[in-house]
Amino acid sequence: MTKIITISREFGSGGRELGKRLADELGFEYYDREIIDKVAEESQMDAGYVENVLNGNFSVSFPVTFGRTFFYTDVLQQNATNLIVAEQKIIKALAEKGNDMVIVGRSADILLKDYKPLNIFVYSDMESKIKRCRWRAPKNEQLSDRELAKKITQVDVGRSKQRKLLTDSDWGKKESYHLCINTTGQNIKNLVLPLAEFAKHYF
Amino acid sequence: MTKIITISREFGSGGRELGKRLADELGFEYYDREIIDKVAEESQMDAGYVENVLNGNFSVSFPVTFGRTFFYTDVLQQNATNLIVAEQKIIKALAEKGNDMVIVGRSADILLKDYKPLNIFVYSDMESKIKRCRWRAPKNEQLSDRELAKKITQVDVGRSKQRKLLTDSDWGKKESYHLCINTTGQNIKNLVLPLAEFAKHYF
Repeated sequence: MTKIITISREFGSGGRELGKRLADELGFEYYDREIIDKVAEESQMDAGYVENVLNGNFSVSFPVTFGRTFFYTDVLQQNATNLIVAEQKIIKALAEKGNDMVIVGRSADILLKDYKPLNIFVYSDMESKIKRCRWRAPKNEQLSDRELAKKITQVDVGRSKQRKLLTDSDWGKKESYHLCINTTGQNIKNLVLPLAEFAKHYF
Repeated sequence: MTKIITISREFGSGGRELGKRLADELGFEYYDREIIDKVAEESQMDAGYVENVLNGNFSVSFPVTFGRTFFYTDVLQQNATNLIVAEQKIIKALAEKGNDMVIVGRSADILLKDYKPLNIFVYSDMESKIKRCRWRAPKNEQLSDRELAKKITQVDVGRSKQRKLLTDSDWGKKESYHLCINTTGQNIKNLVLPLAEFAKHYF
């Protein structure tokens, strides 16, 4: 059976880094951004736009040509639906290839449930998330801690909304995952080996 | 540094079994019931009563001799305070011995925080908890699923109350722990090795 680890994570918790390092440690394939790029390629849309839509930010401004019978929001909604369907197909096709993999985000835990993945949620306190975001931010970013906290929360609200399209099990609630790991004050590198060893003996 | 793993758990989630097996796998000392017995011994009170009080069930009926100046509830409250203090001393003394250990419940994650323990929370869905409780229950127990669910919830409310005496960090919220593990539909035995390997590489 294909071994699949899904990583859901709070924005700024280091979940993506943990997922990438975990895949490297286990010798698994790794998918995250690659899925967005593939959806963008197949839909012939801009990757940034696709990412916004797939992350639950429907209210992005984007030039869309539409007929007289459509409202602007309807077109966006239709776009979103098409992109979500495309994304789901791509994720399922990746799993069907049969390679062991780590997949970050994209509600993969729900989409690939037939593969009995190990579903992990990565979280941390707001202070750690702000610190991690600052460390990764462009030098000219001028957001206050409060603004940054708001942005972090907004991203997670988007993720939560996207999950709601697929399942009743709540995003971020421990009951929705097999394992939840707290990265507060942790160096992500130090969690890779413990988690990899957990995974090796879990499957 | 002494390696300490604390296990907090929902009633019926299999957390105690997981903690015991984890200690055996790692060759760590294991403490749970032993602490109650020691508190009972030192306070010269009945172990069942001590357990009830330490689990947050203050409203137990118990013959207490008290002077005219005390109300019954005050005596119980004073008893509870004394027992909690005694318990805390015992837990801290265990840690001071310097042996690696797994300790289940008793807010040990808070009491022993200076030892930088690995704090684990074990949980599962109500269906699994009911199933596990039935499996362990005496043959003549006649509780309905609804009654059993109520009992399970009550025990956890007691645990939550006890924790509130020591800390603002909430019982059962993933933010209060380093790692949360879901035992829904799992055979506890299958989680021991993954968790032991996690712990080995965590410290």
